Amino acid sequence: MVNQKMYELGTKKSTIRTIFEFGRRRAAEVGEENVFDFSLGNPNVPTPEFIKEAAVDILTSMEPAAVHGYTIAPGNPQVREALAASVNRRFGTNFSAGNFFLTSGAAAAITICFKALAQPEDEFIAFAPFFPEYRAFVESVGGRLVVVPPQPEDWQIDFSSFEQRITNHTKAVIVNSPNNPSGAVYSEATIRRLAEILKAKEAEYHHPIFLISDEPYREIAFDGYTVPYIPNYYDNTLVCYSYSKSFSLPGERIGYIVVPNEVADFGKVYGSIAGAGRVLTHVNAPSLWQLVIGRCADRPSDIRTYVKNGRLLYQGLTDAGFECVKPQGAFYLFPKCLEEDDYAFCERAKQYDLLLVPGTDFGCPGYFRAAYCIRTETIERSLPLFRKLAAEYQ
Amino acid sequence: MVNQKMYELGTKKSTIRTIFEFGRRRAAEVGEENVFDFSLGNPNVPTPEFIKEAAVDILTSMEPAAVHGYTIAPGNPQVREALAASVNRRFGTNFSAGNFFLTSGAAAAITICFKALAQPEDEFIAFAPFFPEYRAFVESVGGRLVVVPPQPEDWQIDFSSFEQRITNHTKAVIVNSPNNPSGAVYSEATIRRLAEILKAKEAEYHHPIFLISDEPYREIAFDGYTVPYIPNYYDNTLVCYSYSKSFSLPGERIGYIVVPNEVADFGKVYGSIAGAGRVLTHVNAPSLWQLVIGRCADRPSDIRTYVKNGRLLYQGLTDAGFECVKPQGAFYLFPKCLEEDDYAFCERAKQYDLLLVPGTDFGCPGYFRAAYCIRTETIERSLPLFRKLAAEYQ
Repeated sequence: MVNQKMYELGTKKSTIRTIFEFGRRRAAEVGEENVFDFSLGNPNVPTPEFIKEAAVDILTSMEPAAVHGYTIAPGNPQVREALAASVNRRFGTNFSAGNFFLTSGAAAAITICFKALAQPEDEFIAFAPFFPEYRAFVESVGGRLVVVPPQPEDWQIDFSSFEQRITNHTKAVIVNSPNNPSGAVYSEATIRRLAEILKAKEAEYHHPIFLISDEPYREIAFDGYTVPYIPNYYDNTLVCYSYSKSFSLPGERIGYIVVPNEVADFGKVYGSIAGAGRVLTHVNAPSLWQLVIGRCADRPSDIRTYVKNGRLLYQGLTDAGFECVKPQGAFYLFPKCLEEDDYAFCERAKQYDLLLVPGTDFGCPGYFRAAYCIRTETIERSLPLFRKLAAEYQ
Repeated sequence: MVNQKMYELGTKKSTIRTIFEFGRRRAAEVGEENVFDFSLGNPNVPTPEFIKEAAVDILTSMEPAAVHGYTIAPGNPQVREALAASVNRRFGTNFSAGNFFLTSGAAAAITICFKALAQPEDEFIAFAPFFPEYRAFVESVGGRLVVVPPQPEDWQIDFSSFEQRITNHTKAVIVNSPNNPSGAVYSEATIRRLAEILKAKEAEYHHPIFLISDEPYREIAFDGYTVPYIPNYYDNTLVCYSYSKSFSLPGERIGYIVVPNEVADFGKVYGSIAGAGRVLTHVNAPSLWQLVIGRCADRPSDIRTYVKNGRLLYQGLTDAGFECVKPQGAFYLFPKCLEEDDYAFCERAKQYDLLLVPGTDFGCPGYFRAAYCIRTETIERSLPLFRKLAAEYQ
């Protein structure tokens, strides 16, 4: 009667959701302050004051039709011009409005790219650990997700595994740096090598292989780590950006795709993106938020809380005996579990009301994700519990 | 290299768009006031003051995380409760929050329904004249659009043609009343007969046939015409609503789906809707606008301009000799062309800078659509030109 696949996608609870709901129930039993919920990637830095000011000013000073009317499908041209100018200043690129396509956040941006590109039998490569929705999104457009195993020592890329997985059917490769869940930032060396391999494979197979850069955490990179701007290294790059994390606006659904002029057959790619946005029924990105991000394009993200929390949790966990790569960006740690079975480990952590997400959910068994976009005090108070948990394994 | 279908959907300009762009060029040549653009269904009544006030108040008085954070996929529960209460007061229904699923506008709402329901070989029936995007949306989820020919004397339903087109593969029937482009409102008799036929066919084929009611124009019905609330007549109804027209918020993308408890296998349908929303990447409806519509659920639409414009244009066109059904709702007239070929007729109208959309675009050759959501003065000044155009055919 209904589409069974949609029913499953709509009703099978994600592990993260299940953990979060358990946390809500526990909070009701033992008190909010006694539950240490590291499960959700919801930014806890408040939306910046300048965003509120811009929104209120636009609402009170502009003609309603100019604020709330339909925009053309790629988005308000002046806004796209402002974003292009801002990106050009930061990364030395040469974009104009015509290279930008505004979207309802990054989930829409990446899925629009998948749908624009996917033909039957196409393969999309992702690197473990990866954002679990990639699988649902790729499969929903008829593509197949191919996963490259992780490189846990630094969460960079295992290039020999990667090369083995590129075939004549590879349509695109998805990268996500700073990474959810590993917290790693791909180094310039990683990006250069990635680009080299892709160029060689393009030459071998005589067709473009796209690099889809999913970068909602771009602004959240810590001292000493810079996030290379991938279009500067590889021509067939599509950049998918979101303001969900950088300006703490996840509910408003605002982001963009960049299609550089250097992309093979620019017109075909940009046109297909427009078609995909149309049938995925993103008529236009929400119009007020288009104007707000246009005005705030050059404003910085406030990442101080994430820097402080990341250091604190990393120090606390390594002191307790956990193995963990030092946080470089985003707001996640991805330490090794103290037993092989990550589900069993996270269940054990639950007994201390430490709510962690098993790495299996991200295609990486044996690890767990701890999202530290939470109150610093909660992290402080969780550390003795992590020590107790670790002691159980000694 | 790209998905060819997406490329075509993204680059083939719609007739409406082409006409609109012609109008912009003409305006540059002969002056804005000398172009009579009846092509676009963009509401010209300003967004109500109470919407602006609600948005500003929410932005300035609430915690940012409560305004801009992710909501659960079906939308903020308090907002859905408020909408349910408002619909219950107006239509005597008995809905609660759990019957509502907030969406990014009506395009998303109807396509989420299509995707939730569609299985291979499924057919979706629409009545000509119909909103042209229905075809793209139905086909994009793998369904087939089956069109019932129009009944031009009153733009109600040709029931014998309809009955002939229902098959064992009919998954759903789409209705849009008040109608774009005909301006007709389905009468209670029409809805009763429609429900009767569908119930009989459900019994015959032993499976539900859904009625998807696409009703962005619900509030825009003129004196003497009421819009029956379809769930009160037929159990397997899914209501798709949008605030684009009623509150002049088309760019913000906010609307909802109602899934009544009476729908066959409610849990399956609601669950599949959640799955479809997920893979169409409508993570949640824009969160600020969820709160705004929750606060303004009981506020009325201001339709005075549309009533006045509809009367004026109808009178003017019938005086000039056009055959036209009297406007009942929405903001469109759909008169008969003065020659058989509607494209040729609209080209001739262009010579007077009257920009009209050929009925063929809506699956109804020989007619044209005139959108009267424009300045009253523009309509007044267009009437002598319509008379001259008509005189050419005498």
